[in-house]
Amino acid sequence: MTYRAPVSDIRFIFDHVVPLAPVAETELFSEATPDMIEAILTEGGKLCDEVIAPTNRAGDLTPSVLENGVLRSAPGFKEAFGALAEGGWVGIAASPEFGGMGLPQALNVGFNDMLSGANLALQLCPLLTQGQIEALEHHASGAIKALYLPKLISGEWSGTMNLTEPQAGSDVGALRTKATPNDDGTYAITGQKIYITWGDSDMVENVCHLVLARLPDAAPGTKGISLFMVPKFLPDESGKPGVANALKVVSLEHKLGIHGSPTCVMSYEGATGWLVGGENKGMAAMFTMMNNARLNVGAQGIGVAEAAYQQALSYARDRVQFAPIIEHADVRRMLAEMKAEIFAARAIALACGVAIDLGRATGKESWSARAALLTPIAKAYGTDMGIRVASTGVQIHGGMGYVEETGAAQFLRDVRITTIYEGTNGIQAMDLVGRKMMDDGAAAFRLLQEIEDEAQAARGDFPVLAEDVWHAAEALREHTEWMIGQGMQDRFAGAVPYLDAFARVLGGHFHLRAAKACGRDSPRGHLAAVYIRRLMPLYAAALAEAKEGAEGLYALSVEDLEA
Amino acid sequence: MTYRAPVSDIRFIFDHVVPLAPVAETELFSEATPDMIEAILTEGGKLCDEVIAPTNRAGDLTPSVLENGVLRSAPGFKEAFGALAEGGWVGIAASPEFGGMGLPQALNVGFNDMLSGANLALQLCPLLTQGQIEALEHHASGAIKALYLPKLISGEWSGTMNLTEPQAGSDVGALRTKATPNDDGTYAITGQKIYITWGDSDMVENVCHLVLARLPDAAPGTKGISLFMVPKFLPDESGKPGVANALKVVSLEHKLGIHGSPTCVMSYEGATGWLVGGENKGMAAMFTMMNNARLNVGAQGIGVAEAAYQQALSYARDRVQFAPIIEHADVRRMLAEMKAEIFAARAIALACGVAIDLGRATGKESWSARAALLTPIAKAYGTDMGIRVASTGVQIHGGMGYVEETGAAQFLRDVRITTIYEGTNGIQAMDLVGRKMMDDGAAAFRLLQEIEDEAQAARGDFPVLAEDVWHAAEALREHTEWMIGQGMQDRFAGAVPYLDAFARVLGGHFHLRAAKACGRDSPRGHLAAVYIRRLMPLYAAALAEAKEGAEGLYALSVEDLEA
Repeated sequence: MTYRAPVSDIRFIFDHVVPLAPVAETELFSEATPDMIEAILTEGGKLCDEVIAPTNRAGDLTPSVLENGVLRSAPGFKEAFGALAEGGWVGIAASPEFGGMGLPQALNVGFNDMLSGANLALQLCPLLTQGQIEALEHHASGAIKALYLPKLISGEWSGTMNLTEPQAGSDVGALRTKATPNDDGTYAITGQKIYITWGDSDMVENVCHLVLARLPDAAPGTKGISLFMVPKFLPDESGKPGVANALKVVSLEHKLGIHGSPTCVMSYEGATGWLVGGENKGMAAMFTMMNNARLNVGAQGIGVAEAAYQQALSYARDRVQFAPIIEHADVRRMLAEMKAEIFAARAIALACGVAIDLGRATGKESWSARAALLTPIAKAYGTDMGIRVASTGVQIHGGMGYVEETGAAQFLRDVRITTIYEGTNGIQAMDLVGRKMMDDGAAAFRLLQEIEDEAQAARGDFPVLAEDVWHAAEALREHTEWMIGQGMQDRFAGAVPYLDAFARVLGGHFHLRAAKACGRDSPRGHLAAVYIRRLMPLYAAALAEAKEGAEGLYALSVEDLEA
Repeated sequence: MTYRAPVSDIRFIFDHVVPLAPVAETELFSEATPDMIEAILTEGGKLCDEVIAPTNRAGDLTPSVLENGVLRSAPGFKEAFGALAEGGWVGIAASPEFGGMGLPQALNVGFNDMLSGANLALQLCPLLTQGQIEALEHHASGAIKALYLPKLISGEWSGTMNLTEPQAGSDVGALRTKATPNDDGTYAITGQKIYITWGDSDMVENVCHLVLARLPDAAPGTKGISLFMVPKFLPDESGKPGVANALKVVSLEHKLGIHGSPTCVMSYEGATGWLVGGENKGMAAMFTMMNNARLNVGAQGIGVAEAAYQQALSYARDRVQFAPIIEHADVRRMLAEMKAEIFAARAIALACGVAIDLGRATGKESWSARAALLTPIAKAYGTDMGIRVASTGVQIHGGMGYVEETGAAQFLRDVRITTIYEGTNGIQAMDLVGRKMMDDGAAAFRLLQEIEDEAQAARGDFPVLAEDVWHAAEALREHTEWMIGQGMQDRFAGAVPYLDAFARVLGGHFHLRAAKACGRDSPRGHLAAVYIRRLMPLYAAALAEAKEGAEGLYALSVEDLEA
């Protein structure tokens, strides 16, 4: 089975479902001509198919290892990353001032989707580097930008994100790593960080760590956190990697999946660091980095789902039990639903990318608010869906899916992390019902109004599907109105199902657009019916769950849960 | 974290939800006195906690291996299996005539639930042996029974089930293994079998293979299949393992999970076998074996879910992020829903066990039909739920769940097989809407009537929960009436969601019984509300999906799915 990057699906979405044209027409993104967009998708897809995907299995079978403190990445990874770097793919959305292509984030999301399907473990390296680039662009001094950005954008160096410590996961404010001022303006960084993805790499000349730490006498919690650039090798006067910094990889985690991606325990032992952003302003810079990463983690879920779907489809076509199993109704149902879910999640993620781009290019608050609203939905739904689809892929393979050699199980193992990192999906859902509703739901209601208006207008051609979408949006609106009146505890108790319901309504909305573009009796029309009639109805069960609030949960004491 | 077998939950279900008393009052099960039942649950639980569970991690870390054709099982497995054998646990439900305890299958299901939570990979060995015992009890000649049953029941020997060949999985009729009559009444068995669980074992003196094969000139398909007993060592005149038979383990599969359980490719090279049941009657014997195993595979899902739940609960109590994470509403929701789902699936499985026992003890067709109806539901819901709960267990652990050392990931990897083997859950669902509805739904309607009557009677004390259950049962009844009028293709297209809806209605029904037994404001009353208000509502979405039928699925051609 051979992976084919979903170029035509992404192109279709940009053309007909979540138009990229309004982004390309802005001055900021004038580089994004139709030819350029086409080239990015086509050439990016080709690179994923021909160069990246063939390394995926080796990453699983021959994980990164630490030998005498030196990291050796999986066979073929160095060459594959080299091809990414050489083609400028790390810097698709980065500033042209430092060598980036300056293209829309939406295109980058599409590329990350394709790249994740090809090799998730490898994709994490450019993904985190992209997050670092964005953090530096927004928060670093001119000197740091000038020194680091060209190297990161070119892929000569890579970037990491150092937040977590053993006692500080979702509660970032509990971190203890210390930063002590040296007398030359630098800082001495001391502490231990865990879960550092690509914390070392033999694919690049230097590894640049962005590390959250506390200055002496900093306030407790998140208000006392600062961000530091701590490179593996200190750049010399010519900007080349020089003396080794006082940091090391202590060990690698033994994980369920993404074996090709080293997950490091890092020790900083008075390592030299440079402040990025102001003192005690580390959280703001971190959120820049994480917001980018969140959306692209959603794209990871979608990409792996795509690869798992393609493999299951190929197996179902070839495997004969009575008939080719693809002819069995239950297998057909699984495949059609996989495809429909992937399309929905992809459209949501690309819509989020477009909103980010339009927010930046037009400066309009309504677009930034749309982007902020869609980010947790794109992350959580993309990754939940990724797990569902990869698990269904295993199921379609039957016993062969449970045997590691087919690779179906690898997709499930790999994608399982995506609902956890960059903020668990529970955290995403709380972000949605909390921070993202601080506007009393204004951004949500604007979006729901658009969905209802479009559904209303489509009723003539799509009496059933448009009606379904309209009712779902209306139910979501009513629920949202009710929710805005509730306290945070009740919102949080229903946050995860609420997010899922929101995603399903959005999925129905985008499928309806696709059906409108192609007609009711087109393949996309049929796929829309699969989603809207079979998968979207779960929104009602999710809203019922969300509406229950917190009381019934706490009615069960901890002792009751233990009994 | 220490596993505690769910003795009190099982006891409660037998006392108040799915009474075991009517079984114990029959003549057939007169051994099942209250003291005996209590002893089985308590001593069985203790064995699981103290002897079996401590071996679970070693099975994952140090899988069974094949060394020069000889199987070496994981550290501690031999001693653990020895304890099971010595206590008579393999033969709980086996005939006293051959050394079994002759106790109800329902008790055996409860024990398999506890044992699966302790060590799923190990449990597979007695599980398959139990299936073989039942097949021999029903179909073997007196000589074979006398020779093999005492050894299998005592756990001195173990049993396997040899169905699958590379081209013959769900389509068993496609198998090619040959059986040629020898002139002494035995047969020479030649062929290759795959996915043979515990196809060899160093925990026992002999491994007894029940092998499906074709006699010369047998009809094609399932009508030409016969069953043979093919022991690893040919019993000598005193019944002791003698000369090695002409069979061998070719290789072991490298699997996603249950590493402690060797999954063998077997080669039979003119091996000596004895016919079990009549010529060409192999499928009937196989179904006896599989029916037992199906229900107990449901129990596997439940057991692993229990263990995953306990570990996640323990982690959530201890892990502090702001507060102990168990105090966070979303974590509380996950835990409460895990517990509620486990209870529902457990009650369904034990109800199926009770129906089997009452069918045997009373000879009443209504009980056998009830058992037949519940078997695919117990298997599919128990295992689907097992995967959901184990995956949620990983999620509650956050990053720690993705690191193998916590064991949370092992539960997910282990339980993932259970929706696949002993008939995929798709096959279970087709069995439910096909064979099990050949009575035009009579057994289903009888059950639904009971559910509605009970809900009706409970309306005074449980105005909300009883109303919900009544409506759900009524919707399921209406859907079932509609479905009976549909062709098989449409039934099959909706089979999986239909089965899920049925299970959720049953889950609500049993939770309501628990609430009635303990009162609305009891922990079990609160748990019932969690299930009925938050999880049961999915039945409506599932029925909506089921009602769509096949047409919309086949509207998408294979080429459309590939596009």
